[in-house]
Amino acid sequence: MAKTQVLVVAGTHGNERNAPWLMEQWKHRPSLLATAGMPVQLEIGNPEAFAANRRYLDRDLNRCFAPDLLADAALQQVEMRRARDLLQRYGASGQEPCRVAIDLHSTTSGMGNSLVVYGRRPADLALAAGVQARLGLPIYLHEADAAQTGFLVERWPCGLVIEVGPVAQGLLSARICRQTQLALEATLLTLAEATEGRLHLPSGLLVHRHRGSVDLPRDLDGEPLACVHPQLQNRDWRPLQPGQPLFWEPASELSGASSPALDLEAEAQWPVFINEAAYGEKGIAFSLCRRERWPVESHWLEALQSLMAP
Amino acid sequence: MAKTQVLVVAGTHGNERNAPWLMEQWKHRPSLLATAGMPVQLEIGNPEAFAANRRYLDRDLNRCFAPDLLADAALQQVEMRRARDLLQRYGASGQEPCRVAIDLHSTTSGMGNSLVVYGRRPADLALAAGVQARLGLPIYLHEADAAQTGFLVERWPCGLVIEVGPVAQGLLSARICRQTQLALEATLLTLAEATEGRLHLPSGLLVHRHRGSVDLPRDLDGEPLACVHPQLQNRDWRPLQPGQPLFWEPASELSGASSPALDLEAEAQWPVFINEAAYGEKGIAFSLCRRERWPVESHWLEALQSLMAP
Repeated sequence: MAKTQVLVVAGTHGNERNAPWLMEQWKHRPSLLATAGMPVQLEIGNPEAFAANRRYLDRDLNRCFAPDLLADAALQQVEMRRARDLLQRYGASGQEPCRVAIDLHSTTSGMGNSLVVYGRRPADLALAAGVQARLGLPIYLHEADAAQTGFLVERWPCGLVIEVGPVAQGLLSARICRQTQLALEATLLTLAEATEGRLHLPSGLLVHRHRGSVDLPRDLDGEPLACVHPQLQNRDWRPLQPGQPLFWEPASELSGASSPALDLEAEAQWPVFINEAAYGEKGIAFSLCRRERWPVESHWLEALQSLMAP
Repeated sequence: MAKTQVLVVAGTHGNERNAPWLMEQWKHRPSLLATAGMPVQLEIGNPEAFAANRRYLDRDLNRCFAPDLLADAALQQVEMRRARDLLQRYGASGQEPCRVAIDLHSTTSGMGNSLVVYGRRPADLALAAGVQARLGLPIYLHEADAAQTGFLVERWPCGLVIEVGPVAQGLLSARICRQTQLALEATLLTLAEATEGRLHLPSGLLVHRHRGSVDLPRDLDGEPLACVHPQLQNRDWRPLQPGQPLFWEPASELSGASSPALDLEAEAQWPVFINEAAYGEKGIAFSLCRRERWPVESHWLEALQSLMAP
């Protein structure tokens, strides 16, 4: 039997240029990407938005994969059609069936090299644990957020997002490219080991579990009254300190500025996606997580290995 | 006699969001900006591009101010009309005459807080020297570049650009806002002193004089074959070292990558605007300067003070 194919998507957001550029190089010279023997399908997520160097044209492609949206034939925006097209071609029952989807993103926030996992599917957790054991990447576990749903990788039996930053939209950065490639190669190596039934997982998984999001203070027109405080910028994955200022408002150097304290859930003090440019429209200045260490459960590995078995 | 008005422009490029946001705050609460008593006109350079969060709609507004373009009545793009409109309203002979224009920009390159001066007009050099004496900002002297002409401030008797980075397009950053405001306030204070005839200049001016620009290596379709090397990224204003790699191409961590050496003018080794996102379309990966210390000439101060005299 042939090995399970892995769908690798870049440019799901058309103004995140690094992974699509890497992908172009890999297509020209496949030896540049170490796939660990895994068959991969390399695909630009949103080619029309990519051509326009915009995040999306009609709506955010990475929020289009909710089952109710996909099933609603009245929704015919560019991105809804593209979501259905990707599933028809590369879905688990598609023309070129893939059982795993890896979606490559970049961010203006200082996330470094990181993974995003949606919910608690055992195969996802096994894959994330395997990559974390290899590279030590932090993991943002996104769940229980009714305002943000319909992510691409959720419609494949297994999948995760590789999220690298900070980098401006529309900009190539060698550091971002290197980190993206490193994380993808570690993911493919982990999948190859699972395919061969020889993946070993560590005893624990460290996750940052989403608990909520915080917006900038805004005026009645929705315009921001302040921006992220310089002492918070690029402090993703580091806990907030009591009384730490979160927002900053302009003032002459002669005057002072203060920040209102935030009423935070006592243990949700780990911010991520601090000042992501595209999240302004979503009303998110940063998200807050609880940092938790989970024991790795044996059925996670079984789920991933049985999914990957040829 | 009334004091000379100063035109302060933000959002000449519509996706550079920090200065326009600051300007909005200053308009609501004028006390937030220390103008040193100078009358200022606060204006969004390209409101239509700002509304679209794009650098420009038809063409780069900050390349529209060449006399031959302004005089060509056949050119009626959004930005050409806006350039003429700004001059008619705020030009030295306009409805609200201003003799100085300060244009507030941001960049994705690691320029820090810096000034850009176009050519060698004595009043510009006096103003730049006064700001440099106060804050120590580095100065990029742009001249003798036939491919890049028509900058806004050139059409006012005196003017300069405040250029702050790195910041992603479309993103608010407190650090960028603070630096922008600090540089503008120092500029207004310098102009106030010139107005009152009590400006003292230092004996020397340190400039980085533009000598040329370098593009990424590209394939026949114009697509980049490499990106800026991580050892060059954010090294604006620091001299290149012999043999220093300039470009980086993707490779598996298992293989190596090399960079071709560049044949550089021996003394033009000071890079600026390294990896500015908007310069890809202009074929500029970075520009190279000579670093020169000029004696401040007494007629510079005379030119600025006579221009500012009420």
